[in-house]
Amino acid sequence: MRTILTGAALAALGTAAMAQDETKVIGVSIPAATHGWAGGMNFHAQAAVERLEEVYPQLDFVLSTASDPAQQVNDIEDMLATRDISALVVLPFESEPLTAPVQAVSEAGAWVTVVDRGLAVEGIDDLYVAGDNPGFGRVAGEYMAEKMPDGGNIVVLRGIPTTIDNERVEGFQAAIEGSGIEIIGMEHGNWNRDESFNVMQDFLSRHEQIDAVWASDDDMAVGVLAAIDAAGRDDVQFVLGGAGMKEMVKRVMDGDAMIPADVTYPPSMIATAIEMTAVGMTSTTPVSGTFTIGSVLITPENAEQFYYPDSPF
Amino acid sequence: MRTILTGAALAALGTAAMAQDETKVIGVSIPAATHGWAGGMNFHAQAAVERLEEVYPQLDFVLSTASDPAQQVNDIEDMLATRDISALVVLPFESEPLTAPVQAVSEAGAWVTVVDRGLAVEGIDDLYVAGDNPGFGRVAGEYMAEKMPDGGNIVVLRGIPTTIDNERVEGFQAAIEGSGIEIIGMEHGNWNRDESFNVMQDFLSRHEQIDAVWASDDDMAVGVLAAIDAAGRDDVQFVLGGAGMKEMVKRVMDGDAMIPADVTYPPSMIATAIEMTAVGMTSTTPVSGTFTIGSVLITPENAEQFYYPDSPF
Repeated sequence: MRTILTGAALAALGTAAMAQDETKVIGVSIPAATHGWAGGMNFHAQAAVERLEEVYPQLDFVLSTASDPAQQVNDIEDMLATRDISALVVLPFESEPLTAPVQAVSEAGAWVTVVDRGLAVEGIDDLYVAGDNPGFGRVAGEYMAEKMPDGGNIVVLRGIPTTIDNERVEGFQAAIEGSGIEIIGMEHGNWNRDESFNVMQDFLSRHEQIDAVWASDDDMAVGVLAAIDAAGRDDVQFVLGGAGMKEMVKRVMDGDAMIPADVTYPPSMIATAIEMTAVGMTSTTPVSGTFTIGSVLITPENAEQFYYPDSPF
Repeated sequence: MRTILTGAALAALGTAAMAQDETKVIGVSIPAATHGWAGGMNFHAQAAVERLEEVYPQLDFVLSTASDPAQQVNDIEDMLATRDISALVVLPFESEPLTAPVQAVSEAGAWVTVVDRGLAVEGIDDLYVAGDNPGFGRVAGEYMAEKMPDGGNIVVLRGIPTTIDNERVEGFQAAIEGSGIEIIGMEHGNWNRDESFNVMQDFLSRHEQIDAVWASDDDMAVGVLAAIDAAGRDDVQFVLGGAGMKEMVKRVMDGDAMIPADVTYPPSMIATAIEMTAVGMTSTTPVSGTFTIGSVLITPENAEQFYYPDSPF
């Protein structure tokens, strides 16, 4: 469902009342990207800003995308100096270099919403929006346990060694416990297609029977599928990735047996952060705190809700 | 800042476009109350519904307040049977009796947002909105440590023995560690004014010098203040409560030395839950997950933001 009012209609209607209402500016600062998860994030940030400019005529938005941390620092300093922002929504390129400029925004009295990656100092952000990594693993594990009621042998590809990856894998392992599913191989594919191709090629050469793969990420799943194809193997029944890449969501939607499901770690969490910041700026509703976006199982039944054909991701 | 459009203006403007947009109904089911925290919650639920009916003409709301769990069960069954709700926002009276009816709503395909008190079965709610109990204690402890740089002797009143109370007290104790503040007495006042009066009376008779009180709740603070008055003691420099009761926020706003600050545990979290559910119904923004509303320190500088003179709480 879309907002039914156009900006022009609202502008015409709102003129008289607007005068009484102070316009507030919300700055949005995110890393630039033309593909991948960050590309999806840019798409959803733009869409949220467009939607909210229609819903709330008393809000203005300034959206900046930066190619490196230094540019993002400049963007934020600019928003504060020249746009008099009342709130900043920021997905930091890196934690360290962005901490001081975001702190300056907070100290100037503006609201700060931080998305996905924390800052190096705690307590700066009023609102923190991030994904749920233990839940991401748990949802994947629960799906596999349900899909393989008699158990089976699986291999697992892990991401870059990080707390994020550890939390995901621990959540997965806890969820498959007692299911009869055995992890016969687990290696780091580092959230990279090519590396995951090589890892999967190695798994295939070492194991005669692999029933399924937890690729744990859609980019890694692409590499895994290519390796299975290249080897001409038909023992692998399905591959479960994660994130919600549109090509994978499309395969789920189309009933592709090799990609029967996916698990969200949505780049659209930037939209959640922008929406909540807008609620905070236009109402007395409390929106300070921590919002942990749940990881949801995508199946053929609900895949359409998660499919954004216009997004690069 | 208020929404600038009236419902009538929007209705006039929206007629043509509305036809294309399916109206969705959001049910809100909460315990009834005429005073206290639940009274504030009713006030903010009503305010959020009124605001959102103006912002989103494509949403209808049905708000029911129940005097007991059985009535709340009926309300929810009614919403599902006769109002065809697309989403339910529920603050359960009690966990056990509400679990099955809310599960039925979820199984019928509607979105479920649960507020403050969890259900007896996990995984029913799409969104869970609740307060931050460890943070509530931490913010209180940090304030006390800053307010008493040379340390001092304090007494603490605890709530009803529950996980909530334990988390709050542990957060508080961790925050005052190393500050020179000593807890010379700690007893349960059970979130009750009269019991807290008695507990404080006992503290005053046993201790000649009490520098400050962490009452940990505004109702308990009312009892504590009455006991101090009745005893005619002037050693107690200040009392710190918690929740954001309007009488206490007013005293903070007025610069009352005995109530120099307060810590939020806002009944307006119901508004957060309703707002986020509305975002979920009107956009593709992900709003599933867990939102932990932060506890914020109320001081004379920001008290006005937290003062709702029309609310019963």
